Amino acid sequence: MKNVKIATLNSGVKYQNRDDFLLVSFEKEVNIAGVFTTSSTAAAPVLWCQKNIKNGKAKALIVNAGNANAFTGIDGEKTVLATAKEAAKALNCLKEEIFISSTGVIGEVLSADLMTNAVKKAAQNLEFNSNSFTKAAKAIMTTDLSEKLTSKTCQINGQEIELTGFAKGSGMIQPNMATMLGYIFTNANISAACLSEILKEVVQDSFNAITVDSDTSTNDTVLLFADKSANNDLITSPFDENLADFKKALFELCLDLAKKIVIDGEGATKLIEVEVNGAENKEMAKICALAVANSPLVKTAIAGNDPNWGRIVMAVGKSCPSLNQNDLIIKMGDFLMTKDGKVHPEYDEEKIHQYLLKNKEVKITINLGIKNASFTAYTCDLTEGYIKINKDYRS
Amino acid sequence: MKNVKIATLNSGVKYQNRDDFLLVSFEKEVNIAGVFTTSSTAAAPVLWCQKNIKNGKAKALIVNAGNANAFTGIDGEKTVLATAKEAAKALNCLKEEIFISSTGVIGEVLSADLMTNAVKKAAQNLEFNSNSFTKAAKAIMTTDLSEKLTSKTCQINGQEIELTGFAKGSGMIQPNMATMLGYIFTNANISAACLSEILKEVVQDSFNAITVDSDTSTNDTVLLFADKSANNDLITSPFDENLADFKKALFELCLDLAKKIVIDGEGATKLIEVEVNGAENKEMAKICALAVANSPLVKTAIAGNDPNWGRIVMAVGKSCPSLNQNDLIIKMGDFLMTKDGKVHPEYDEEKIHQYLLKNKEVKITINLGIKNASFTAYTCDLTEGYIKINKDYRS
Repeated sequence: MKNVKIATLNSGVKYQNRDDFLLVSFEKEVNIAGVFTTSSTAAAPVLWCQKNIKNGKAKALIVNAGNANAFTGIDGEKTVLATAKEAAKALNCLKEEIFISSTGVIGEVLSADLMTNAVKKAAQNLEFNSNSFTKAAKAIMTTDLSEKLTSKTCQINGQEIELTGFAKGSGMIQPNMATMLGYIFTNANISAACLSEILKEVVQDSFNAITVDSDTSTNDTVLLFADKSANNDLITSPFDENLADFKKALFELCLDLAKKIVIDGEGATKLIEVEVNGAENKEMAKICALAVANSPLVKTAIAGNDPNWGRIVMAVGKSCPSLNQNDLIIKMGDFLMTKDGKVHPEYDEEKIHQYLLKNKEVKITINLGIKNASFTAYTCDLTEGYIKINKDYRS
Repeated sequence: MKNVKIATLNSGVKYQNRDDFLLVSFEKEVNIAGVFTTSSTAAAPVLWCQKNIKNGKAKALIVNAGNANAFTGIDGEKTVLATAKEAAKALNCLKEEIFISSTGVIGEVLSADLMTNAVKKAAQNLEFNSNSFTKAAKAIMTTDLSEKLTSKTCQINGQEIELTGFAKGSGMIQPNMATMLGYIFTNANISAACLSEILKEVVQDSFNAITVDSDTSTNDTVLLFADKSANNDLITSPFDENLADFKKALFELCLDLAKKIVIDGEGATKLIEVEVNGAENKEMAKICALAVANSPLVKTAIAGNDPNWGRIVMAVGKSCPSLNQNDLIIKMGDFLMTKDGKVHPEYDEEKIHQYLLKNKEVKITINLGIKNASFTAYTCDLTEGYIKINKDYRS
């Protein structure tokens, strides 16, 4: 993407010997859409972005890792403002066109000096090469073990459209509007209002369908930047038929990033897909899927390769009051586990144990037998590793 | 309690070398009240009890540990019916006066033969001595490390009233109506309908205020038996002023048993009390208290003696949309942690670390600053022990 320039560096805020500060600058102003945490203790940079996203215009993105600038009161707001002003000066734009995210420990003051110094230095080292997005994805990591980066192409009006996104997140993951941090860049010519509608729709079944530990961050943010450099006719309506391919590509990109977050969940060894069908409506399907995906008893059983379907029954039972238990069908992989309110006559525990043992990605399919609504949630198993990371280290 | 006779034995259902079957018989029929799981996958014995509790009369209680007789379809119902019939024959009463609970693995068939044999044998070995309640409390344990038994006395109309209760539970604990299994015995002369009202009220702030792992069992049951042998005038209204002392004693007994369950939570090393004040209503206070009490990030921080109040902010933020974060006050023990939307000026991390290190019972107090409603939840910390128990063993 010709319009994008990237710089990463070590800011001195927290980490040693690695980049923890990212500046993405757009040579020309781009359209932007975003979704944010619904937490009532949203961080200062989230409040800043929520205020300025309404204008739909962006000139730069700044992200720091290691300090969330959350629950930092007036000091936190001052740091955000100083950072935005410094960047606006360096990049010759309005401070309202600077979008800022932070991730890391909650409640520690983020130094305005360290941030403005980092902005100054980064603004002088902007560049773009084949490694730039990877460097960006690495610079925003906290407890992540690997960077999360993905690209798609699609067509609008016969024009080739690029989509590149990166994200971070490993713990405190059950996004309620978006996930930890995700950034998507496209050359499509789509209005900010239209981008916003599409993004809201797409995150529901991607970033908002994942959970590592049921905890919702104070800093969840997904931003979508469109630099308009593809030569497609401007699209302003989310219902425009020419958007079909773009929506599909954007959804696939978001789901891919979301799954990468789950696979890299703190202490995780397996990705678990929980598909609920036969629900009365999508909300019921989601509540049920998340109850299974968040059950520590289900997650520890999978960690132990134990086909303990009784725990899945329990999680469905606690979350779905209108269920008739005789209609409940549970499958793991292709193996039927229940029928007529009890274990399936062909249930073979050893076979399913082998399925769990051999697969890093496990699928649980549940049919409630009520109506036709569905939802799929994504989670990871729960291991001693999660406890160790969160008990012994402050992240 | 003269009217109570108890027998325990090994039923051969699951455990070796320990009693796992309990029969409590009442020489004269007693009044009974109960509360049960709200799960839509409630176990066969729960469905049996729910049907018969309406009559308000009990002649015996049967409990087995190691097999929950949950999600066992028509086979499970048959075992319950056979057990009740055998007990009715042995004790010369109606089968509807036999109350049955099961706890253990979900989805395995509970043998009717083993249960009826156990009933026959137990009925011939009924006795009561100073050790009987302790034996009863031990016989119903599964992953529990210690038995949970407590007694209170109070007065009604100047008559001495006894209350004795025992309970079990260690994992799959976030009761929605009652907790795993709890049984309370009193000599008070109170009608079944009145007992039922009092019990429902009392469990809200005791058994229903605890959580180990946010998972709700298929078998949760609390039963309250009143044998009427105290010479107080019959009480039929829950609003009767003479009940004040009894209600207080019953609440204290239930809270004591509930806390014993949390302290014995799987892998737990600490009891955590989460008191939320300043909420708009009790429901909001409860949602917030349980969000903190169920947050794996809060629970692992406490396990590591880390005063990571940022995680408490996060849990409050995700659960309480109408919060103004500048009004949020968080205390650990007597130590203030937050003020004006940021860390409290007198916050001293080392002091609170020492407080956590030295105390097996930890208190978190939260004021939302909205209105005046309160709720207190009880939970335990989350350690590698929980993972180990649930990953490596099928419970």
